[in-house]
Amino acid sequence: MKKVGVLGGGQLGRMMIQSAMNLNIQVKTLDPDPNAPCKATAHEFIVGSLNDYDTVIDFAKDVDVLTIEIENVNTEALIDLQNKGVTVYPKPEHIQMIQDKRVQKQFYIDNNIPTSPFVLIDSIDQLNNHTDMLPAVMKVGKGGYDGRGVQVMKSTDDFSKGFEAPSLLEKMVDIDKEIAIIAARNANGEISIFPAVEVVYHESNLVDYLLSPATITTEVEEKAKEIATSLVAKMEFVGLLAIEFFVDKEGQVIVNEIAPRTHNSGHQTIEGNITSQFDQHIRSILNLPLGNTSRRSASAMVNVLGEKGYTGEAIYEGLDEVLKLPGVYIHLYEKFMTKPERKMGHITIIAPSKDELFDKVDAVKKHFKVIA
Amino acid sequence: MKKVGVLGGGQLGRMMIQSAMNLNIQVKTLDPDPNAPCKATAHEFIVGSLNDYDTVIDFAKDVDVLTIEIENVNTEALIDLQNKGVTVYPKPEHIQMIQDKRVQKQFYIDNNIPTSPFVLIDSIDQLNNHTDMLPAVMKVGKGGYDGRGVQVMKSTDDFSKGFEAPSLLEKMVDIDKEIAIIAARNANGEISIFPAVEVVYHESNLVDYLLSPATITTEVEEKAKEIATSLVAKMEFVGLLAIEFFVDKEGQVIVNEIAPRTHNSGHQTIEGNITSQFDQHIRSILNLPLGNTSRRSASAMVNVLGEKGYTGEAIYEGLDEVLKLPGVYIHLYEKFMTKPERKMGHITIIAPSKDELFDKVDAVKKHFKVIA
Repeated sequence: MKKVGVLGGGQLGRMMIQSAMNLNIQVKTLDPDPNAPCKATAHEFIVGSLNDYDTVIDFAKDVDVLTIEIENVNTEALIDLQNKGVTVYPKPEHIQMIQDKRVQKQFYIDNNIPTSPFVLIDSIDQLNNHTDMLPAVMKVGKGGYDGRGVQVMKSTDDFSKGFEAPSLLEKMVDIDKEIAIIAARNANGEISIFPAVEVVYHESNLVDYLLSPATITTEVEEKAKEIATSLVAKMEFVGLLAIEFFVDKEGQVIVNEIAPRTHNSGHQTIEGNITSQFDQHIRSILNLPLGNTSRRSASAMVNVLGEKGYTGEAIYEGLDEVLKLPGVYIHLYEKFMTKPERKMGHITIIAPSKDELFDKVDAVKKHFKVIA
Repeated sequence: MKKVGVLGGGQLGRMMIQSAMNLNIQVKTLDPDPNAPCKATAHEFIVGSLNDYDTVIDFAKDVDVLTIEIENVNTEALIDLQNKGVTVYPKPEHIQMIQDKRVQKQFYIDNNIPTSPFVLIDSIDQLNNHTDMLPAVMKVGKGGYDGRGVQVMKSTDDFSKGFEAPSLLEKMVDIDKEIAIIAARNANGEISIFPAVEVVYHESNLVDYLLSPATITTEVEEKAKEIATSLVAKMEFVGLLAIEFFVDKEGQVIVNEIAPRTHNSGHQTIEGNITSQFDQHIRSILNLPLGNTSRRSASAMVNVLGEKGYTGEAIYEGLDEVLKLPGVYIHLYEKFMTKPERKMGHITIIAPSKDELFDKVDAVKKHFKVIA
């Protein structure tokens, strides 16, 4: 029986466990939080820092493959493990590249991958040299997540909200749609691309819901798939690569960001597609044949976030109302404590028509709340 | 967070865990085998006898609901627990009734549920008084499972193969089809019935494959659903009831056997139907609204059995060939050791047409083998 080591014991690891069970794969996870979502159902759950060299080295000693569910990990340890013959997927050099949005951007330029114009910025005072970039988005190179480390700069008045850290200033794209695609590649070089999903954002900058199929033309979808294929092929990437795209008002498809792992934008594949992103991740890192990614039906995915104003032991309101809806799948992440906007779970909705889908999305949002 | 106690830690418990995780339900299991399938992924895995009164009483002390995944458990303990206010679903009296096929048969007669003619037999020598029943099937009242405790009696020559135990002698039905239906009822009295599946048997008397939809007329399906509904309503059953039917050459639908739990004949609901039998079991015992049972697509389910001639640590042959087939889902049960015909897993196949379904069933059977 194969043992997969996962750096990170959050919800992505937890859903990976549900998939891994079907192939008798043992999952061992490492997380600094003793109550992380993988705690109870991983074959082994180790508490420790993902950024500590010795902890990561020690964690990997008995695994067949080492993988991640979060990219903020000690990559020096991963490189040394790889040099000692441990199988590490995604490859440490890819995790390093993606950890730093500045290096990521340079990779796109070097490899002819369409991306928005940008300049590198190291401190707020440098912003004054780049007023020609406005309106723009400032992003810290390392450590941003879920909207943190990202600041919109509409005018020079916003410069004071910038970051005193190595950052990017990206020209704002005139966005028509945001879409995401998950690509997989195994060590044999087999590549498989999921259909595009549309990402609909709420004012809070956290994903409001995901829609599959995306309401884009075939040309836009084909272009995005072509870029995704080219990315994983050029990188010789192994594992799952989530790619977020902007489609601008002219129909140009440009890469916004990538993540070398299962991703929020792929959750609806569990029920919506033939193969789920979690199954595909396991297949890719174990060099198994990749699964068919076709849609089984239209689907939407709504994040379950901690309601504003509530912090404490989580209570799920509206469970019965949502369970009554056909084709609505609740996925909770076994997080005991809620706080405002904490990701506590997600809900996937399948339906034969988009109208039905939207009705159910509305019902889910109306009824389901995480309070304390 | 609710804690469900499950008597039995086998594959049915294991698949229940995969479902339960989605609602943050903690699963605690009891099994005599320290390497039972639930060992690694249950929130708590207790090793102990399901037939020992004190063990069962002690196991239930901190659970919100007590349920089963095998009916051979100490029902005296369950009755006492129920009397002390512990929620036990299915109800102990139903488990007791179903544990004994003789009592089960009497229940059908008393409640006007169609079943085959039978006589009660206590020893082999009594068989000579019932030659008018031939051809017949002799079944032990208690403890039979997967073909054990069942003997076909074509002529008086077969009497010597009978059982020296309280048994049934059932007139053999002129079977056209075998079908199965899973019914659910919650404590609110809500009833939900899955579509019928067709059970195709192999000469070994273990299920060869399951087919959904069953190739039966609408009338036969409606009749079976009517019987299923009537059964759970009359019993005031709470939980999941699996009902196996014979359809005879005249199109009569008669009940063969029932099981008060998730069942092999419901495995394909995981991918084939909107709600899986495991989700439905959890909903029913926690008195949550029951899920929609409609088919998402045609499906077939093949049991993965230990190949004859191999005993030892299991090796799965043909994994790659099967993983290459679109819409084919492998479910292994984390059983370390294989032996001839041991249930090691199952494979569900979905397809847009029955022809494609049969092609993939053939491919799965050809390639996938459990050896040692």
